[in-house]
Amino acid sequence: MSAPTTVTAAVLVIGDEILSGRTKDRNIGYIAEYLGKIGVDLKEARVVPDVEEEIVAALNALRARYDYVVTTGGIGPTHDDITADAVGRAFGVPVIEDPRALAIMLERYAEADLTPARRRMARMPEGSALVDNPISRAPGFRIGNVFVLAGVPSVMQAMLDGAAREMRTGAIMQVEPIEAGAAPEGLYGDALGRIAEANPAVSIGSYPSFKDGRFMNQIVVRGKDAAAVKAAKAAVEAMLEAIRGDGKPL
Amino acid sequence: MSAPTTVTAAVLVIGDEILSGRTKDRNIGYIAEYLGKIGVDLKEARVVPDVEEEIVAALNALRARYDYVVTTGGIGPTHDDITADAVGRAFGVPVIEDPRALAIMLERYAEADLTPARRRMARMPEGSALVDNPISRAPGFRIGNVFVLAGVPSVMQAMLDGAAREMRTGAIMQVEPIEAGAAPEGLYGDALGRIAEANPAVSIGSYPSFKDGRFMNQIVVRGKDAAAVKAAKAAVEAMLEAIRGDGKPL
Repeated sequence: MSAPTTVTAAVLVIGDEILSGRTKDRNIGYIAEYLGKIGVDLKEARVVPDVEEEIVAALNALRARYDYVVTTGGIGPTHDDITADAVGRAFGVPVIEDPRALAIMLERYAEADLTPARRRMARMPEGSALVDNPISRAPGFRIGNVFVLAGVPSVMQAMLDGAAREMRTGAIMQVEPIEAGAAPEGLYGDALGRIAEANPAVSIGSYPSFKDGRFMNQIVVRGKDAAAVKAAKAAVEAMLEAIRGDGKPL
Repeated sequence: MSAPTTVTAAVLVIGDEILSGRTKDRNIGYIAEYLGKIGVDLKEARVVPDVEEEIVAALNALRARYDYVVTTGGIGPTHDDITADAVGRAFGVPVIEDPRALAIMLERYAEADLTPARRRMARMPEGSALVDNPISRAPGFRIGNVFVLAGVPSVMQAMLDGAAREMRTGAIMQVEPIEAGAAPEGLYGDALGRIAEANPAVSIGSYPSFKDGRFMNQIVVRGKDAAAVKAAKAAVEAMLEAIRGDGKPL
C-alpha cells in the first residue's frame, strides 16, 4: 500500500490585537478544523504583531516549509493594515493597486466614496489572484502558496471557502474520540503508551479537561488508514473496559 | 525622560489537539491579557505539534529572542506528554525525576497509586525550579527564562499566577479603547493614519467586528506614556466627532 498523501499548511495570524489580548483569536481553531476535514493538515500556527519585518520573517519561514500558508488580518483600510506590503516584500514583488479588485469595490462604493483608505484594500502584490469576499466585497488574495484573508472571523470564514477550493488535498485524517470519563490518566497512561507503541500508524492523544473539581478525559485516535484507526480504537476501548473493571492501574 | 522599560514574552502552545482543531486554544488570549496587565509585553505566539524536534526548534528560537517564554501543554502523565524531554533537549541538560516534585505528588497519591505514568509528571530538566500547581499538585517548572505550564486552562491559569511572580516587569501599556460604532473605517482611515503619524509614541489600531450584516468599529490607542496616550485619544475623539457631523470622509 502506498503511503497516504499528505498536504500541509500553516496559519499566520497577523495583529497586535491578538498579542495584547484585546481580541481572542478564533481563526486558528476554525481553520484547523476546516482544513482537517478537507484533507489538509495544519502543522503550525504563529501570531505576529503588525510589524512588517516580523510578518516577512514568519511568512518566509512558513511558506518555505508547508504546502500552504493562510494568513489572517491586516488587509483593511486603515494605516495598521500592512499585510499586503509585507507579503509583497516577502515575495520580493511590488505591491500594486489591482484593477480587478478596484472594479469589485466600485460595485459597492460610488466612485466619490472610494476614499484613499478604501483604495488601500485594492493593493496587493503584483501577480496575485483574487480571493472572493462575499461578505464585504474587498477581496483577499493569493500569491504562490500563500492565501491572504481578512481577520474578522465571519469574513475570513467566507474567504476560506474560496481559498480551500484552490488547494490540493490529501488523505483525510480519520478521527475517533473515545470517552475515558473519570478514568484517571495516571491509571491508564502506561497501558495507553503501550497501545500507542504497538500502533505506529496512528497517533493517540489523551486530553484532560477540568470541571467541577475533577478531570474528565478523552482519548483521541487519529490516522489516515481507517483499518489502523479502527484497530487502535478497539485496543483503547478494551483497555478502558479493563480499567473500569477493577479500578487498578493497567 | 528615559524610555519606558520593556519586558517581552512569547507563548509556545504545544499540542496536536490545537492544530487538529479538536481543542480551541484559550491560553494565548488569557496569557496575553494577563501579562499585559503586569507590564510584560507578549510579542509572539506559536502553536506546534507534539513532535520533539518542532518543540525544540520553536523554543530555542523564542527563548533567544524574548525575555520570557511561557509554554502550555504536554506535561501530563501520558505518552504524548513530551514537553519536559523537549525542553531538556533545547537546553542541553538531562531530564531527571525531581525529588521535590515527587514529594508534592506523594501528598496527593498513596505510594501504591504513583504509577509510572504519574511519575512521569515529576520529570523535568535538571536544575529546574518548580512552578506551583494549586489545582492538581503535579508542578510545572522553570528553567532559565522558560516557564513550562499545563495545557488545561484552569490549571495553566493557576500556574501562571506563580510564574508571573517570578518575572521582571516593565512599564504597563496604557490602553484606551474608543468606540467608533458604525462610522466606517473607509471614511476615517485616512484621518486616523495622519493621527497615527503625528503621534509616534503610541500605536493606534482600528478593529472592525461584523454583526447583523454590518461592521462596527473600535479604535484602540496603546502606549506606555500616559500623556501621549491621552493626547492621541483626544485627537481620535475629535476626528470621530467631525466625521459624525457631516458623514463625509476626513
